[in-house]
Amino acid sequence: MIKLKPREAEEIAKLMNYKHYGRVVAIVQDAKTSEILMAAFMDAKAVKQTLTTGLAHYKRRNRRTLWLKGETSHHYQHVKEIFIDCDNDALLLKVDQDVGACHLGYKSCFHRKLSAGKLKTVRKKIFKPEKVYSEKSR
Amino acid sequence: MIKLKPREAEEIAKLMNYKHYGRVVAIVQDAKTSEILMAAFMDAKAVKQTLTTGLAHYKRRNRRTLWLKGETSHHYQHVKEIFIDCDNDALLLKVDQDVGACHLGYKSCFHRKLSAGKLKTVRKKIFKPEKVYSEKSR
Repeated sequence: MIKLKPREAEEIAKLMNYKHYGRVVAIVQDAKTSEILMAAFMDAKAVKQTLTTGLAHYKRRNRRTLWLKGETSHHYQHVKEIFIDCDNDALLLKVDQDVGACHLGYKSCFHRKLSAGKLKTVRKKIFKPEKVYSEKSR
Repeated sequence: MIKLKPREAEEIAKLMNYKHYGRVVAIVQDAKTSEILMAAFMDAKAVKQTLTTGLAHYKRRNRRTLWLKGETSHHYQHVKEIFIDCDNDALLLKVDQDVGACHLGYKSCFHRKLSAGKLKTVRKKIFKPEKVYSEKSR
């Protein structure tokens, strides 16, 4: 489980390169199965918050606020390992995902696959989003 | 192996959501080992070129040009499977990577891991970048 001291987290957050519109890419992978769960963006605040709490935080795409993944659904991502890429502009989080990562009810946001030139849903829903989300959020 | 007809590729490229500064995120995963190799960005042109050729193409971060991964190193990424996320703004490419993805000589760009609050190199180099790249490029 990742849980850094504030000063350590500050150093890692400073190391990252936010040249791409103030953000770095976060790739989220299931720590046990290696399945890719989602992609998201982080700013320095989200990096620090993730590192100190051990729970994945992102920057919302449309709003300027910090997003604790699971704040509505309680489907939190418990960060087990973190890798950083050679350019310091992407993180790979290996997580234990509570229930599912996708707001549509799937374990992974990547539940559709290109097959014979068309996009096909190839995974099964594991929860009912209408029961988990009271309004459109994730 | 992914090899779409131009019309099919056009339809998938149109489906994608380029709201994030004209780009979508591409996550690149080794088709055999499930190791994450790199993260990059694609614009519509890079998506189409990837889908029709079966070789991963990206948008350069700093320049406006299309980037065929491997054009200098000949370390091409042969795309075996593609998944698209629920927001249509990220692709997951499962690839056969020739030699290595990282311009520093590693199989994966994610060769450094957070360990006891510090970043440590945890993978071994598999090629000598100075022999592969004549100038700084990748």
